[in-house]
This record gives sequence, structure tokens and C-alpha cells, in this order.
Amino acid sequence: MPLYRATLAYDGTDFEGWQLQSAARSARTLQGTLEEALTRLGGGTPVRAHAAGRTDAGVHALGQVVSFELPRPCEPAALARALNGLLPRDLRVLTAAEAAPGFHARRSAIGKLYRYELDTGRVQLPQRRRFAGHAPGALDAVAVAAAAELFLGRHDFASLMSSGSPVKTTMRTVTLSQVQQEPERLVYEVEADGFLRKMVRSLVGGLLAAGRGTRSLTELERALAARDRSAWPPPAEARGLTLVRVDYPPEARV
Amino acid sequence: MPLYRATLAYDGTDFEGWQLQSAARSARTLQGTLEEALTRLGGGTPVRAHAAGRTDAGVHALGQVVSFELPRPCEPAALARALNGLLPRDLRVLTAAEAAPGFHARRSAIGKLYRYELDTGRVQLPQRRRFAGHAPGALDAVAVAAAAELFLGRHDFASLMSSGSPVKTTMRTVTLSQVQQEPERLVYEVEADGFLRKMVRSLVGGLLAAGRGTRSLTELERALAARDRSAWPPPAEARGLTLVRVDYPPEARV
Repeated sequence: MPLYRATLAYDGTDFEGWQLQSAARSARTLQGTLEEALTRLGGGTPVRAHAAGRTDAGVHALGQVVSFELPRPCEPAALARALNGLLPRDLRVLTAAEAAPGFHARRSAIGKLYRYELDTGRVQLPQRRRFAGHAPGALDAVAVAAAAELFLGRHDFASLMSSGSPVKTTMRTVTLSQVQQEPERLVYEVEADGFLRKMVRSLVGGLLAAGRGTRSLTELERALAARDRSAWPPPAEARGLTLVRVDYPPEARV
Repeated sequence: MPLYRATLAYDGTDFEGWQLQSAARSARTLQGTLEEALTRLGGGTPVRAHAAGRTDAGVHALGQVVSFELPRPCEPAALARALNGLLPRDLRVLTAAEAAPGFHARRSAIGKLYRYELDTGRVQLPQRRRFAGHAPGALDAVAVAAAAELFLGRHDFASLMSSGSPVKTTMRTVTLSQVQQEPERLVYEVEADGFLRKMVRSLVGGLLAAGRGTRSLTELERALAARDRSAWPPPAEARGLTLVRVDYPPEARV
């Protein structure tokens, strides 16, 4: 069956995440919504879609990548248009293309870029409440930047993983970990070869603890080395997080 | 009774505008929502709030100004905090202050700044759908900029007014009319001593007609001079419009 890939953007506010994390079968998930549209386009043959990042409830995307097989060949531009005609306004197909043989959105990925936006002002603008977390109070800019540096390189991130995540290894290589601080606002970008569940939100939780002075840099370093979830500060809210980009090796491109 | 003013920000998406425009008494309006909170704070005495701009359904604000009297004096910072505790997340009080005697948010205003955001890309990002109109297709940048120039100065804007608006005069002085054009995006800012109903959205409708080449500059000039609503292109969608700032004379400040 012909194999496709597509890039998606979504406002995750009103979705229960990419896939179901509980037994509630009636929840509105991104996977369910996309597969329903793909199945309709395929004339009723059930279609399964695989996402590069299985984003949690409330998390957004500007460049999520999915792969799926269709029962019949389809012109990619027409496919994107037809899908957007069937999908709700908070989920859009930005591009669609034929995929290289064996391409799998998650297994073929070699890197991802996430962005986290945080409002630190006393009152959060309603215009930003869907796409930024809110933690009122000034942060120590130097401590935040220093903590972000700490995450760079290859580490065992077991302390930052959500429980019940079945992974072979908790080692990950962070290649970008950068904070941009503006008045009443913080934007964090992090790039790695892969992420554990809730890892980005836990990284931001660490930045917040450093910025508020509740954890010193040395304490954060020890908590990271401890490989113990209970040692690390709590994760930041989901709504500030966006999957910006997924990277693939050259051979994965058609 | 002590008189107050407050600055509001809101996401107008889920409101039926500042006030009711039809007989539907159960609709969720900004005025109704704010007055309910003020009345609760006032211990049940009904409080009436006046807004500088009576924004239509779906229109947003970053700097709406309101005035109201309370039955008892109240410390302004505590008032803002208490209101935000009672108001929904899509309506926030940014600042509150005692008002100068005789201050009226609408009647004392001497100018307003509105911003209109428009996405011109084929697919609109879900992240922008609440705060930007969508008109796919490239626009002629020079024609758009020239049309924006046309609105500057003192004109009779009767052609751009929504029907059924009871106003003494349709003359208005536009002091800023400026378009910023980016790839797949247009941001229009317009400042005037006052605006007629749907005037900003009608101005944007004119910009769009110029940019698409459906109206020449001369045709727009004639349609403006005609003082006839049917001569002017249709208004742009409400969701792209934001009331950014309201200006008052020095004596209106406490």
C-alpha cells in the first residue's frame, strides 16, 4: 500500500493528547481525529497513523510529522486539501508527501525541537492563555540560563521521566538548550535526539526552580544524577509546550 | 459614589461582544460578565460599567478601558485582584485606578488604536485562528499600502458604517493607517479620534479589495466619497480585530 508522510499543526488545548492515556474511549484525541478523516478518504478501510511525538493532553504542534498507508495512491497536494476539508479547525495538515519506503514518523526520527513559553507576569493576557504556561513572579535570569546549560550533552534523564514509560534507555543527547528572557516572558527551546515522557516539561520545572532560587545549580545537578523522579522539581504545565520540528536522516526524504 | 477606571484584556472569541446586539438575554457578553463580578464585589448593589469601545462579537482587546461607580471605596490593586478572582480566564483586569471626577470611559476618550491581523497563507495555523482573519492568496503589497494611505486625515466615513448606528456625525480623523506585510501575514494598525460601527473591519475590507485588485485606488476613493454603504467592499471577519489602546486628555488622568 502507498506510504505517505504529513506535517501537522495543532492547538492541543481541546484534545486529550495524541493518543489515549486512559480507558476513556470517547475522548477526543489527535490520532483518533486524524485516523477518522484518513479512513473516510480511504473509502472506509481503517487507516493507522503514526506520529513522531506522542504529545500529551494540552500540548501543541507546529511541525508534528505523521506516517500512514492508504489503500489507494493519492496525489499529495489533493490529499492535504481533502484532509483539511474533513479535519476540525484546531488540527491542520500543512504539507503531505509520498514517503520513502520503510519510513516511520517515530522510528525514523533522529531529532526533535520543542519550545516552551512561560508568562511570568502577575496577570496572564487572555491572548496567551492557550499557548503559554503561567508562573507569576520574576525569575533570576542568570540562574535560569545556567540551569539550561546543565542539560546540554549526553545524560541519563531518568529523573525527568514520567512513571510508566516503557523505554529501553533513558540516555538522551541534548544538542540545544536555550532560554530567551523578555519582560514577563520566557521562551525555552530544546533539541535532542529524543525525549522521554514529560521530559521537556520537567526540564522547564528545573529552570523554574533555579530561577526562583528554590534549587541551586548544584542541587539540580545532583537531582539529575540521582536518576530518581522524586528528586526532580515538578513538571511545568502542558499548555506552554509546542513540538516545533522533527528531523530525519537524508535517506528518509524521498 | 467612588468612581473607578480599569484596563481590560480579553479574548473575544467566546463572547457575544461587549453588549447585547439582539434580544437574546442569555448570551455571554463582556459587559454582563464584568457587571456581574462588580455587583458581587459591591455586595449585591447593581453596578453599571461603561466601555470606551463597544466591541462586536468576536473582537478582542488588549487595552479596553471601562469606568464604573462602586457603592463603597475600594483599594484599586485589591479591586483588580478580586475581580480577576471572579472573572473567567478569557477576561482579565490589567490595571484599576480611581478615576478623575466626571470620567466616562467612552465620552472622555479622544482617540483609539485598533490592530487587525490577517493570515494570507493557504492553510491557517490553528495557533492563530482565534486572533487573525484568514484570506488565502497573495496580495499586491503596493496597492494595499496605497489604500491604507487613502484613509489618513479627516473624512466622512458613512460608506464604512454598519447600518442602524445612531451617530451625530460620520466625520472621523484618522491619524495612523499603516500596514506591515510579512510572508503570509498582514498586520494593519489604525488610530483615529473615534470609529463608526464596523469601521475598522470595513477599512480592512477595502485593503483586501485593493490587494486582490478587485478595486482600483480610484474606485476606493469614489466609494469612500459616495457615503453609501453598498458602494464599499464587505467588512473583514471580526476575529482578526483587537482594540489595543484608548487615549484620554491629560485632565482625565487622576
